Amino acid sequence: MDGYIGWSLALHQLAIGNEVCGIDNFSRRKHVEEVGSWSALPILPIEKRLEILKKKYGNKITFIEGDITDPQFTNDVFKKFIPDAVVHLAEQPSAPFSMIDQEHTTYTQSNNVIGTLNVIHAIKNYTPKAHLVKLGTMGEYGYDHGLEISEGFMEVEFRGKKATIPFPRLAGSWYHWSKVHDSNNIMFACKLWGIRSTDIMQGVVYGTRTNEITDEELFTRYDFDEVFGTAINRYCAQAVIGYPLTVYGKGGQTRGFLALVDSIQCISLLLDNPPEDGEYRVVNQFDEQYSVSDLAERVQAIGNKKGFNVEINHIENPRVEKEEHYYKADHEQLKNLGFKATRHIDDEIKIMLDDLVKNKKRIIEKKDAIVQVIKWREKVKENK
Amino acid sequence: MDGYIGWSLALHQLAIGNEVCGIDNFSRRKHVEEVGSWSALPILPIEKRLEILKKKYGNKITFIEGDITDPQFTNDVFKKFIPDAVVHLAEQPSAPFSMIDQEHTTYTQSNNVIGTLNVIHAIKNYTPKAHLVKLGTMGEYGYDHGLEISEGFMEVEFRGKKATIPFPRLAGSWYHWSKVHDSNNIMFACKLWGIRSTDIMQGVVYGTRTNEITDEELFTRYDFDEVFGTAINRYCAQAVIGYPLTVYGKGGQTRGFLALVDSIQCISLLLDNPPEDGEYRVVNQFDEQYSVSDLAERVQAIGNKKGFNVEINHIENPRVEKEEHYYKADHEQLKNLGFKATRHIDDEIKIMLDDLVKNKKRIIEKKDAIVQVIKWREKVKENK
Repeated sequence: MDGYIGWSLALHQLAIGNEVCGIDNFSRRKHVEEVGSWSALPILPIEKRLEILKKKYGNKITFIEGDITDPQFTNDVFKKFIPDAVVHLAEQPSAPFSMIDQEHTTYTQSNNVIGTLNVIHAIKNYTPKAHLVKLGTMGEYGYDHGLEISEGFMEVEFRGKKATIPFPRLAGSWYHWSKVHDSNNIMFACKLWGIRSTDIMQGVVYGTRTNEITDEELFTRYDFDEVFGTAINRYCAQAVIGYPLTVYGKGGQTRGFLALVDSIQCISLLLDNPPEDGEYRVVNQFDEQYSVSDLAERVQAIGNKKGFNVEINHIENPRVEKEEHYYKADHEQLKNLGFKATRHIDDEIKIMLDDLVKNKKRIIEKKDAIVQVIKWREKVKENK
Repeated sequence: MDGYIGWSLALHQLAIGNEVCGIDNFSRRKHVEEVGSWSALPILPIEKRLEILKKKYGNKITFIEGDITDPQFTNDVFKKFIPDAVVHLAEQPSAPFSMIDQEHTTYTQSNNVIGTLNVIHAIKNYTPKAHLVKLGTMGEYGYDHGLEISEGFMEVEFRGKKATIPFPRLAGSWYHWSKVHDSNNIMFACKLWGIRSTDIMQGVVYGTRTNEITDEELFTRYDFDEVFGTAINRYCAQAVIGYPLTVYGKGGQTRGFLALVDSIQCISLLLDNPPEDGEYRVVNQFDEQYSVSDLAERVQAIGNKKGFNVEINHIENPRVEKEEHYYKADHEQLKNLGFKATRHIDDEIKIMLDDLVKNKKRIIEKKDAIVQVIKWREKVKENK
């Protein structure tokens, strides 16, 4: 509940009258510190956050510190709270972090896979009708196969027989593969035990504000370092401190994007419309597609209007990925449930730049963390 | 190197003149003891096994006790031995074991996924040209999709675009999913670092003898309990002690099968014919397909000829699986490399029964372990 989406979602769910039990082990704060950075927007410590929430929502908010990779802890929390729905965001969320070295790779896969296994067991053990909403990523599908991407499953014909099969998963980092392992485990749990789950293949989420984050003391985190910040976050941070935007390679890498406020809208819609018992539902959750060059140019245009004098640099791509590729992905299911995007990316960039420029000092203090670069295959080059 | 295939393979690789460094943490012996059983054929402790091998092969055999989930241990072994090829059999190999409870599920996935990640990192770190031969299972593909199974990859057309994608993996136990996670991780390592690997989708292996296991002191293990013994092993053990063969449900569950001596032949062929640098090769490794009813009837017919008076009982299926299904799988690649099966299943069953009947007392002593049954979804039924 202490993370970027978790905090924002808790605020919204409380605002619409639901009871919330949040969990966190504060690994995100620790890992961002480990890579030499912090949130560009100052966020309150959890004690202060809870003080504010308790004042407003009383006993509708509970928070329990703990680690879901501990089976006893996870079972105890579920036994006590018996949730109607579970939103599982409790994973190591960074691809570059998982690529640092062997230790970070095994930590990421162990943390994510075992944590998710404990959550699905706790659901089976104590609340088998609960709806598990799990945060996956569009990156699970990968970007190299050249196929149009459906939502989770596709019908194929092979040697004269037809079947509906999972859309191939061809992820590009140890982190993304950990999410694929989770998806496979959850799909099996639905079949095995009849639990129901929505696996969200989410695009990149950006933005600093939601309907509830109107006051700066309610800020959710904003990571701008190379490890935990996404490309758009880094570009906005670079723009306000007068550094050139660093685009990896040609910049044709295309992804789906979604404003934070709309991510919260989507998750809430899914919670209101659960799948059937035993159903494993996969939704692609994003609004528009952009290439990273697109993003840089948008940040540049908007930044220049605000007088930042923004330059763009193309630097060597540290990742193993195609820099130009076909990309087209379905995203109909959420629209069918009533999702309408409320923010255009350009409007959100304006707001982000305004929020960031007020915290320029915090970005400058950790500016080295923006351009340190974790290479996807550094070690192998040394060996050859 | 202390397991069923590992021991047999080490004997063969030494016999043909290769240098072997074996690793084991003896988890198999411990786990079989945990479920109340032991090997039907008596096997020597590792110290005695090594004494015999050292007498015959001198310093061509090394053995190091340790656990590959320990990254330091694994890196140290690879740094010291620098293998030309790595045969990775070091996994928790039982589907029922992984289905016992939450602890056994998370142990299985953590043990298998982290062990494999450490092996591929050790290869990258110290011997990037080594050929990784990894033991997967035909069960990774699953049995419910109704498609003919290719070897690892298939070409599909989707919305007018063609692509070669991994054959869908729809496994049926937490253990089988751990193998799928491994396959995905290895496929990614090949792409990322240019290492080369053969991922063996192996059928069920049966048999007690190889070209090297001519003497009983060289016996490899033979598990007949419900958790670590396969259907054919259980049937042979039941036949010699005069118990009815317990077939799960209708018995139409069809699988690929392979004699132990031919499994060793196949692995050795793959070692002699490595893939290219960066290639992730998947082979389906089995000889013939049989249904479990087929197997029971073969054991019954051969057993009766030997005077055992064998009965067959159909019992409630503890697993979540289709008991009748379409099954047809390619297995051309090994034939193209020169593989010819040397044993028919009926001949092997004869030999197995002869070896087992001499150790009838050992089976009777642990007979309760044959029919204890781990249910795939017991807990959920209680909750409903």
